[in-house]
Amino acid sequence: MMNMAAKAKKESKDEQPKEFGKGRHEELGITYKKNVDFGKWYLEVIAKSDIVDERVPIKGVNVILPNGWRIWHSMMDRLDEMLQEAGVENYTFPLLIPERMLKAEAAHFKGFVPEVAWVTHVGDEKLEEKLAIRPTSETIMYEMFRLWIRSWKDLPKKVNQYVNIVRWDTKMTKPLIRDREFQWHETHTAYATKEEAEADIMLSLNIYSRLIRGRLGLDYLELKRPDWDKFPGAEYSVALDALMPDGKSLQIGTTHFLGQKFSKMMDIKFLDQQGKHQMPWQNSYGITTRLLGALIAIHGDDKGLIIPPAIAPIQAVIVPIYTANEKLEVMKKCSEVLGRLETAGWRVHMDDRESHSPGFKFHEWEMLGVPIRIEIGPKDVHAGQVSMVRRDFLERANVPEESLEQQLTETADSMFFQLTKRAAEGLIVRDASDLNELKAELDKGGFVRVPFCGLEKDGKKVKDELKADIKGTLFSAKEKPEPKAKCAVCGLQAKELAYIARSY
Amino acid sequence: MMNMAAKAKKESKDEQPKEFGKGRHEELGITYKKNVDFGKWYLEVIAKSDIVDERVPIKGVNVILPNGWRIWHSMMDRLDEMLQEAGVENYTFPLLIPERMLKAEAAHFKGFVPEVAWVTHVGDEKLEEKLAIRPTSETIMYEMFRLWIRSWKDLPKKVNQYVNIVRWDTKMTKPLIRDREFQWHETHTAYATKEEAEADIMLSLNIYSRLIRGRLGLDYLELKRPDWDKFPGAEYSVALDALMPDGKSLQIGTTHFLGQKFSKMMDIKFLDQQGKHQMPWQNSYGITTRLLGALIAIHGDDKGLIIPPAIAPIQAVIVPIYTANEKLEVMKKCSEVLGRLETAGWRVHMDDRESHSPGFKFHEWEMLGVPIRIEIGPKDVHAGQVSMVRRDFLERANVPEESLEQQLTETADSMFFQLTKRAAEGLIVRDASDLNELKAELDKGGFVRVPFCGLEKDGKKVKDELKADIKGTLFSAKEKPEPKAKCAVCGLQAKELAYIARSY
Repeated sequence: MMNMAAKAKKESKDEQPKEFGKGRHEELGITYKKNVDFGKWYLEVIAKSDIVDERVPIKGVNVILPNGWRIWHSMMDRLDEMLQEAGVENYTFPLLIPERMLKAEAAHFKGFVPEVAWVTHVGDEKLEEKLAIRPTSETIMYEMFRLWIRSWKDLPKKVNQYVNIVRWDTKMTKPLIRDREFQWHETHTAYATKEEAEADIMLSLNIYSRLIRGRLGLDYLELKRPDWDKFPGAEYSVALDALMPDGKSLQIGTTHFLGQKFSKMMDIKFLDQQGKHQMPWQNSYGITTRLLGALIAIHGDDKGLIIPPAIAPIQAVIVPIYTANEKLEVMKKCSEVLGRLETAGWRVHMDDRESHSPGFKFHEWEMLGVPIRIEIGPKDVHAGQVSMVRRDFLERANVPEESLEQQLTETADSMFFQLTKRAAEGLIVRDASDLNELKAELDKGGFVRVPFCGLEKDGKKVKDELKADIKGTLFSAKEKPEPKAKCAVCGLQAKELAYIARSY
Repeated sequence: MMNMAAKAKKESKDEQPKEFGKGRHEELGITYKKNVDFGKWYLEVIAKSDIVDERVPIKGVNVILPNGWRIWHSMMDRLDEMLQEAGVENYTFPLLIPERMLKAEAAHFKGFVPEVAWVTHVGDEKLEEKLAIRPTSETIMYEMFRLWIRSWKDLPKKVNQYVNIVRWDTKMTKPLIRDREFQWHETHTAYATKEEAEADIMLSLNIYSRLIRGRLGLDYLELKRPDWDKFPGAEYSVALDALMPDGKSLQIGTTHFLGQKFSKMMDIKFLDQQGKHQMPWQNSYGITTRLLGALIAIHGDDKGLIIPPAIAPIQAVIVPIYTANEKLEVMKKCSEVLGRLETAGWRVHMDDRESHSPGFKFHEWEMLGVPIRIEIGPKDVHAGQVSMVRRDFLERANVPEESLEQQLTETADSMFFQLTKRAAEGLIVRDASDLNELKAELDKGGFVRVPFCGLEKDGKKVKDELKADIKGTLFSAKEKPEPKAKCAVCGLQAKELAYIARSY
């Protein structure tokens, strides 16, 4: 059985080095260079930094490992605080959705049909109606909204869930970036008026910005997708597009203004304050484990992960350094420092393993991305100081004990600032005004901004000829092309400034 | 579409009152009496107390509502602290398991085959190999264990996940008690020696006791299941059996000593310190959302839920009582009390809704099970006191402000003690020595302890004639029958004291 499984896996992933996986990093550090071979570097980092093991005998499906689990949940915990503040409540809806519900949702369904995994049998018995594993939960959720929303008093309704999703993508899979099963949060809201619903779109974008820019230190463009590329069933979709180190764009979050499309289709009605039947206005928005992939890819370096302090499960690791007769005084000081920092609210771990050398530990914690390392040896104890090493620059500083908390805060802040700065600088946007320029700029990687007519046929041309996508127009800032600007693709009058990129 | 769905649901659940669901409790309190019609009382409480909505158009599948979500996650958070302490790490494994893996696991597979939901198609395409939605995760996890466990240094391995599970049970479904999809935690451990693995069985039972007895205030028997009823693939299974208010037993947790059965079957090997190949010893243990069902059923009363303070998402609710010109002073005092209690580490909510009367709020928070209510009106402000009402006895006490924290602690402790006491008293065990006595005692409800020969044929007889199950023998306490005792079923020499019950 195992050989079959291993073989099946191997056929689909010949490139994968053999020695990945937790435990294996005892033998090797990161061997690929991020700037030289980003794709292999990424696979090596997620395996050796205890994020994901992709050696599962189903293509596009992975095991999330402890460090990956902790970082993902730390991100979702921060998000959850913001959702709670916004009055969103957590639910868990069913995994399976009856076929008739997806069929009724014709326009929406069209978007997912080739990707839906169908349960047709239970044991040896055929089901009367086949059941889809949720590719998203609009239909099953709004079926309940129809029961729950009767009066204006039931609004707004703000529903969130953290669940697994299956979309049997036929394209090349890549762990966290393009998986056939992934984890996500999906929030669904319903309001009495269009104005409230559109204000909630702004709120969702604000929450995502506070999370992604404010805690993760990543940057992205908020792009309103062209009509032909929006979520089926949405009036419009706003995507958050980051840029990966290889110059390709990656969608790391989306917000959909659904208008009344679903409420009309699914007959969701409420009595307003005047006693008249109205249909609610709805939104849905979500972030997947892809955001974890982007975090790793964008912040990481040739030593492994770099986790921003705000979401790091371990923010600082203490490594004691001693010979046998120095152990007592060093460990005493380490415990004291641990206690002080925990009291000050830091998430700190003391690595007191006797089985491994300090050098091994330094290497391992760097690979796992812990933001700050505190080394304490006998000399430090006598000098009343600790040695502090920040993960991004790997710079060392001797910190007097009395300013420990202050220095830790300053170092974490400075590191976050540097990560943010580097990530923002990596979000490259160049301009082009015709097809030749566009091609030349796309070949350099990054987003290219062009005057654009807005027509789908030009989008298709860009896709076919340049293997790139019209990702959309800036959602919040009202950019306009020069009055006489011509569309970079067809040369007709430009109506907007469109962002184009090659993408995952 | 909706009418079809509603109809399909209605056919399978005719008993269900029509007006359940969140929002509906504005019209009605709990109408059924727990002691008179437990089954209907249970369905009414889980719906009106915002725990589960079962009006989903798939039988045996439900929506977990916000109060249910919070209580379940609060329970799992407490569990997670204990698992972390024990060195268990969190992972997320795939939802889908290839057929060949389940087939290879013949003995195990036999146990689940009629319950497995199979994915056979993706979009319109038939899969080459069908995929099972996990009914449990031994096979897919141990496939990875085989890769991860190479040396004695990789042991012990302690893996946990919190995921959804599908078992297409053909019996009568009941929300949280018998669902076709449910949430659970499953912990899987591997050790170098049998001794360590069996010590881990004791540790798992200890963790469960700390959670279920120590935090939830429930009681249960730890029963070693008879061989014919153990988990397929286990050397032995220990189940935690609680007693529901209708006198039927309910399994609320299990621990399985797997021995080397899986490691042999799946070829999991490691090099020991002497450089010899060994096979690890394994355990698995789990708790499902059924524990939430038991908590509701056992602690609840005719007013709704009663949540034990240690796991209550809201431990105390503050309800201000005022007329217009008293508002300022009352709200000022309420905010002060809120701040004091939060500082002291309590999870407190202030219900300052202007839209609802104090009476409505009292009623609602009682239904939702919040352990302690603090009422503050103008008289309380002037007297320097608050009015404290405990959820179990609905007793009111005037508490001087200066002893607020102390009184809250004492009230919560006393309430937990009373809940624990009542739950323990409800765990009824009676003795019987022959089939007639056994039947008479079973008819009263509860567990019946009998001298037993240990043979499966007698277990079958009890099942066929008395509609009851041999649940097993006490695991930890070494109970023995009297030397000359005869089996209560067949009259031959008794070898053990068996616990028998009618069960869910």
